[in-house]
Amino acid sequence: MKLYDCTTAPNPRRVRIFLAEKGIALPTIQVDLRSGEQFRPEFRAINPACTVPVLEFDDGERIAEVVAICSYFEATHPDPPLMGIGAQDRAIVAARQSRAEREGFWAVAEAFRNSTPGLKGRALPGPDDYEQIPALAERGRTRVARFFEAIDRELADREFIAGDRYSIADITALVTVDFAGWIKLPVPDECPHVRRWHKAVAARPSAAA
Amino acid sequence: MKLYDCTTAPNPRRVRIFLAEKGIALPTIQVDLRSGEQFRPEFRAINPACTVPVLEFDDGERIAEVVAICSYFEATHPDPPLMGIGAQDRAIVAARQSRAEREGFWAVAEAFRNSTPGLKGRALPGPDDYEQIPALAERGRTRVARFFEAIDRELADREFIAGDRYSIADITALVTVDFAGWIKLPVPDECPHVRRWHKAVAARPSAAA
Repeated sequence: MKLYDCTTAPNPRRVRIFLAEKGIALPTIQVDLRSGEQFRPEFRAINPACTVPVLEFDDGERIAEVVAICSYFEATHPDPPLMGIGAQDRAIVAARQSRAEREGFWAVAEAFRNSTPGLKGRALPGPDDYEQIPALAERGRTRVARFFEAIDRELADREFIAGDRYSIADITALVTVDFAGWIKLPVPDECPHVRRWHKAVAARPSAAA
Repeated sequence: MKLYDCTTAPNPRRVRIFLAEKGIALPTIQVDLRSGEQFRPEFRAINPACTVPVLEFDDGERIAEVVAICSYFEATHPDPPLMGIGAQDRAIVAARQSRAEREGFWAVAEAFRNSTPGLKGRALPGPDDYEQIPALAERGRTRVARFFEAIDRELADREFIAGDRYSIADITALVTVDFAGWIKLPVPDECPHVRRWHKAVAARPSAAA
């Protein structure tokens, strides 16, 4: 089994943090996204979607979705649990993770990819070229601000994104906050609970992954 | 336990099909999205994101994400399995579901919400108003076409989206195809495998849910 990764990219960092929390070490192959290695025929044969992370199983099957990769390791290495304990808690963690991904992580990606000069014509990851849409960059920034406000209200009563235990929802939200720094969208002073929470999760050794 | 639903909307239909496949009947409350019931204070108190489906547990906790809701019932009603069997298969199903959701379902939603006259100023679901972006509607249509091509290549060798067993990935892709019909994007003749697969999954009794 091996992991295709890129240490400078936010999406594979979600998997790296998850593995670090579990204490799992995997053979890893770096794919240099900045030089366009993901578009070379060798990598397209591995993942036609031209994205990392990719987990390759020993039988050659591959999966290229962050939460799916994490769910595999949650099943094979249940301790510490990062995706909830019991049916209801697992569903709550999944829901909070999913919301953080859609409203947070993808909104930052939308703002970043639609405004960064070096990504002209590359507004979406993947094999197809899409022009940047400036209005979408702007909308992304607004959505990220709304996301911070939403989790601030929730973190007023909770230690972590999905309750009183650190989970994959914290990993997605942490990487979202750090990714938002790339487009100069820091957590605002008006979100003290997010700042408190971010300080705590960013101080965990796994955050360096 | 109860489910907040809207029988005319594609996203809650994913949950309804999942429950029908499992043979689960739940007390259901209809929320009339067309008359704006999701924005009334009564429903905002239930889900501040103003979306359905919402699953309410007996202890009052609520979750509003389709896959999270399905994962709860997969855990409590494992037969028939709709999210894979064993760690690797479950991860593969999760990855195919996630890809179908992002590249298929949300791309259709993007095309639909950014072009439908009745949704002016409502380009995203949720409590906040966002203007339509015509370029995003067009990009959504292109992405849906790419998604159909991608799954056509895969369905050449597989009976179902995630392999040889019907799964939640088929449910997401089925609802995506039917939703694409709303914006007059039928499965093209050049995708015979998608047409064969769609005919089969649409003929299952659950598809009427």
